[in-house]
Amino acid sequence: MEVNKEKYAADLSSIKEARARISSFIHKTPLMTSESLDAISGRRLFFKCECFQKGGAFKFRGACNAIFSLDDQQAAKGVVTHSSGNHAAALALAAKLRGITSYIVIPKNAPQCKVQHVVRYGGQVIWSETTIKSREETATTVQQETGAALIHPYNDGRIISGQGTISLELLEQAPHIDTIIVPISGGGLISGVALAAKSINPAIRVLAAEPKGANDAAQSKAAGRIVTLPETNTVADGLRAFLGEFTWPIVRDLVDDVITVDNTEIIKAMRLCYEILKVAVEPSGAIGLAAVLSDSFRTNPAWKDCNQIGIILSGGNVDLEVLWNSFSK
Amino acid sequence: MEVNKEKYAADLSSIKEARARISSFIHKTPLMTSESLDAISGRRLFFKCECFQKGGAFKFRGACNAIFSLDDQQAAKGVVTHSSGNHAAALALAAKLRGITSYIVIPKNAPQCKVQHVVRYGGQVIWSETTIKSREETATTVQQETGAALIHPYNDGRIISGQGTISLELLEQAPHIDTIIVPISGGGLISGVALAAKSINPAIRVLAAEPKGANDAAQSKAAGRIVTLPETNTVADGLRAFLGEFTWPIVRDLVDDVITVDNTEIIKAMRLCYEILKVAVEPSGAIGLAAVLSDSFRTNPAWKDCNQIGIILSGGNVDLEVLWNSFSK
Repeated sequence: MEVNKEKYAADLSSIKEARARISSFIHKTPLMTSESLDAISGRRLFFKCECFQKGGAFKFRGACNAIFSLDDQQAAKGVVTHSSGNHAAALALAAKLRGITSYIVIPKNAPQCKVQHVVRYGGQVIWSETTIKSREETATTVQQETGAALIHPYNDGRIISGQGTISLELLEQAPHIDTIIVPISGGGLISGVALAAKSINPAIRVLAAEPKGANDAAQSKAAGRIVTLPETNTVADGLRAFLGEFTWPIVRDLVDDVITVDNTEIIKAMRLCYEILKVAVEPSGAIGLAAVLSDSFRTNPAWKDCNQIGIILSGGNVDLEVLWNSFSK
Repeated sequence: MEVNKEKYAADLSSIKEARARISSFIHKTPLMTSESLDAISGRRLFFKCECFQKGGAFKFRGACNAIFSLDDQQAAKGVVTHSSGNHAAALALAAKLRGITSYIVIPKNAPQCKVQHVVRYGGQVIWSETTIKSREETATTVQQETGAALIHPYNDGRIISGQGTISLELLEQAPHIDTIIVPISGGGLISGVALAAKSINPAIRVLAAEPKGANDAAQSKAAGRIVTLPETNTVADGLRAFLGEFTWPIVRDLVDDVITVDNTEIIKAMRLCYEILKVAVEPSGAIGLAAVLSDSFRTNPAWKDCNQIGIILSGGNVDLEVLWNSFSK
């Protein structure tokens, strides 16, 4: 699948512009390899460690690009988002770097460690009820009262462009990779990664890794339209969002397949990341490795020739208590 | 303290030779920074992530140098060591790379994960009783029966030279650092690091980080001679060895001070490594950060000007169960 002429919300140019805009603020994350994990998987694996990104996840790239894209007048009014996850902390940190206010709407049931990150980075926490409706309404109220710019976690060209900078780095660090496996949730990460990677190397394969209990992307690809789910059920708390209008066309056209894995596979992969790679990942961050190790990937003849595989370890923000409880099950 | 003319068991030349010998086998480990940890410590910190080294610890550098220093005739008879720790796995892995046999004498009470590493890397495990005497006698028996070369974990110039390659990398990655903080146990790591670093930059300070419950190096420095302890008591299972005849003169002359920390400080630092750096370290690996955060370091006027500090995260091999038990206390 190649990048066609259709106008997406981002493209290689906007991704290169993003890189120029954010490169002095972000970490260029290391690419790690492990002969032990190569032996276990039967492939050569290259781990792009976005868990080492500032804020503990790739989200800082997009947040940084969005915030430094604002003109001074807009920026002076601050930014707002509703998120219980890594985007919230990333936006707070990027706003702090620009010296502007960030209003972060967080549902009351959000994990403690993610709230702490927002507070540590100077974000103004505004609590909402746990429903999506309450979160959106609270954000809209803040936006109306303050004039702050809403920065959506993924359904935004600036965010997609920022996340796409990962591919630019990855293909410089390992130009020979033939496949990239990317966690999928709302699709901001994989949209940016696929756009950049396939523009540079149309032959490269981009595969999504998705939890079985939140498999809206797999269902959407199968149906040829955005499918949302009445509920989700997965240990990967960062992968519960659904595709949006800007990410769907990119996922539809450029993502070669969606590999779904269950909680057991995710936790096993997370444990391998700790014990062999020595990298602290959150469940969502380990799902790419889970996909490579899954039977559905290993036995699929279509992926038999995927030998040099980039895996994006997307984030590392996890309460150690929660981690332990998943390992103990 | 500068490198004087006395002949130590290693020097900058032997360390550079080691680098040439092992560079195609080892990982050049990344140097990581964290603004959050800089803010907490009040210094600029550069983490040399040897937990990402093959075998999960810096030990692979020395083991590799020792094994590839052997002539073919010696090598054909294999190598032997007695160790329950990271040196054992490192030696097994290096022997595997050279295609020779490694005999690893392991006491019956060794941590399960460390035994697994030895087995995974193809080492031949030979069980001994838990006393040092039994371990040494068993190793001697193996040596006599097989003709294998004994490779001591630290009291060996080849090992010291191999560990010293860390400084060559570190000072290329961050030439401006003014201080290096290094875990100390038998002294192989800090001897190599200090020899290389002070040969390149005589003004650089090298500080040892040592558990309060195994503070033989601090006591040795104070007494001006090797002091051993009747027993040790620390969560840092990799830091229970005592200085040897080859490491002591280097530690005596080139290590500027020994900072001791207790279990609580080590566990707190380990937790920060997981939660902020996203790096899975073992207790021994986190002790350099514990030292930087300790009151005895912060309030000592001698270290007031240590502003750009390299910290060696020496290893990451820990049973997750053990880890959790320490966090829960």
